[in-house]
Order: sequence, then structure tokens, then C-alpha cells
Amino acid sequence: MNKGAQTRQRIVAEAANLFNANGYEGISMSDVMEATGLEKGGLYRHFSSKEELAAEAFDYAWKLALETRIHDLVHFENAVDKLRQFLKNFVERRPKIHGGCPLLNTAVDADDGNQMLRDRARSALKAWQSTLISIVRKGKKAREIRQEVEPTQLANLIISCLEGALMISRLERSDEPLRNARAFLEAHLQTQVRT
Amino acid sequence: MNKGAQTRQRIVAEAANLFNANGYEGISMSDVMEATGLEKGGLYRHFSSKEELAAEAFDYAWKLALETRIHDLVHFENAVDKLRQFLKNFVERRPKIHGGCPLLNTAVDADDGNQMLRDRARSALKAWQSTLISIVRKGKKAREIRQEVEPTQLANLIISCLEGALMISRLERSDEPLRNARAFLEAHLQTQVRT
Repeated sequence: MNKGAQTRQRIVAEAANLFNANGYEGISMSDVMEATGLEKGGLYRHFSSKEELAAEAFDYAWKLALETRIHDLVHFENAVDKLRQFLKNFVERRPKIHGGCPLLNTAVDADDGNQMLRDRARSALKAWQSTLISIVRKGKKAREIRQEVEPTQLANLIISCLEGALMISRLERSDEPLRNARAFLEAHLQTQVRT
Repeated sequence: MNKGAQTRQRIVAEAANLFNANGYEGISMSDVMEATGLEKGGLYRHFSSKEELAAEAFDYAWKLALETRIHDLVHFENAVDKLRQFLKNFVERRPKIHGGCPLLNTAVDADDGNQMLRDRARSALKAWQSTLISIVRKGKKAREIRQEVEPTQLANLIISCLEGALMISRLERSDEPLRNARAFLEAHLQTQVRT
């Protein structure tokens, strides 16, 4: 990676932390200049607008979050084991990004406003749903999961429970709600297993 | 209500919509002036700072949301019927406030920043949890709900599922995820009933 690409990468990483913790409106290009130690010219050489930078910062943050959540999933053959590992990752591993889940933050931040960020959040959600839906479908095909399980509904249940519990956990500064959500979803998965 | 109190009330209602849809950082006192048609002096006569106004606006928005969610609950004797009505309200009734759930919005908005708003969101969550926990406790006492049900865990499960599904529903602009969350929680409640 040449020096220009390295600088660009550093800007995106810093901006991802700032936007994820403070929201789109809470961060200005001056804040990014301060955090990166770059002059105005140095920053605008790489990003012509705050919107362009925020878009790339969101994609970077979301990539980190999704990678953390699907960590080690390939090591499991069985679909239910994959989903269990996914729950474990969500509760026990934290992406290297400040401010909680980039999808929840950006969805809430942009659902009434910024169309560009709203579209990114919508795509991120779709990618997450697709990952889980694909696991459930394969599990049904391999007869590890009961045939009457509706993949989209199970994916949304998992996402809803975890994201809602994350909101409570962050507000209470306690992991207990997240751990309870995991235990609940594991028990629910057990009822979806083909016996 | 005298004219001063009426004006104050009108400011709070307008500000509640603005802050709930755009976040604390997304709204300035000038935006509130524009929305209310008040001059600077007229606005600052009632609220000395944006922080003071945002705090009152959050309480107003949350009161509307919680009232909408507990609508008609008193008409049910049985704890499980009360919880079912609560789920129905959450999915079918929308509080008269723009921008989605004030608690989810403010929790996400303030969890890394504004301490005053964070405290308000924390209290709002506590009030919501207490309402549900109290219903579950009474249901256990009346032997309508199984003794092994842990009230806080059931309350958090309901809150997590609904708030997470609301995030998905708002992003997808479809009520389906919310309706599925309700169906799922109703089925779960059915397993918690004392038989």
C-alpha cells in the first residue's frame, strides 16, 4: 500500500470510530482533521465531502462488525452449530470500533434523514440477513433444521433479539441482557432442530 | 392553562418531533425557532439552553410512547392478556410523534455522549421494564404465569424483540418484521402460561 492509500485508510478508520460513536450530525470534518492530525488540504485530497467520508466509514465499520460476528463459522459443518457460534460471537466478541453496532446506530441515525446512509444501513441489514438465511436454508436442506422453519423469520428474530438486547446492555452498562438473549435464542434454536 | 404555559407546551411538542426524528446533534435552537415561529427571545424565555429543552422534549415523547403502549391494559384482569394487549399496542398503535421509538433513538444517540439524555433514556427504560415486570409478578402471584419465569428476563426479551424488530421494520419500511415479532412473542407467552 502506498503512502496515499495508507493515509486514506487511516482517515476512514478514525472517521468510522467518530461517526459510529457520535452520529453523522455529531461529527464535522474539523473533528476528523483533529483526530487524524491532517490539515484541511490533506483531508479533502482524499474525501471531497463529509457525506462521502461517512459512507466509506460506515462500510468499514460494518465490515469489522460482520467479520467479528461470523468469526470461525466456517469451522462448523452443522447449521445449528453455526448459528450457536454466531450468537456466541455477538455476545462475547466486540468489533474493534467505538460506539456499539454500526447498523443499529446508522439505522436509527438515518431512518428519517440522510438517504445515502439509510441506503448503506439497508444494504448492511440485507447482507446480515442473507448470511443467516443462507445458513438456515442449508440446515433445512441437510435436514438439521425442521422444514417448517421460515428462514427470514428466524434470521429477523435473531437480529431483533440481539440488537434490542445490545441497546439495553449498553444503556445499563451490563452484559446480562445480552447473555440472557443468547441463552433464550439458544433454547429457541434447540426447538428448531430436526429430531 | 395560561398563554405562557400553552406556548411552553407547544415548544416542547414541536421540539419532541424534531429531536426524535433528527437526534440531539441534528437539531439547533434555530430549527426550533423556525418550527414554532418564535423569535429568539420568545424561545429562550421558556428554555435557557438546548439541553434543557431536549430533556423536556424527550420526557414528553416518551410519555406519549409509553401511554400508547399501555393503552387499555387496565381493562384486562389476566397478566397474560395484559401482555398480549401490550404486544398488540406496540405493533398496531403508533405514538403521535415523528421518528420512531424515543427510547431506542435516544439510547443510541446518547450512549456515548450526552450524559443528561443518557440518564433520561436509562430512566425511561427502567419505567418500561418496571411496568412489564410488575405485570409478570402479579401474574405469577395469581398463578396465571409459571413460577419459574424470571420477570426481568421476560420483560427484557419482550423489549429487545420489539425494539430490534422496529429497527428492521423502519429500515425496510414494512410492518412484517414487527408483526412476526409479535406472533413469536405471543407463541412464547403461551408456553409461559400456567396450565
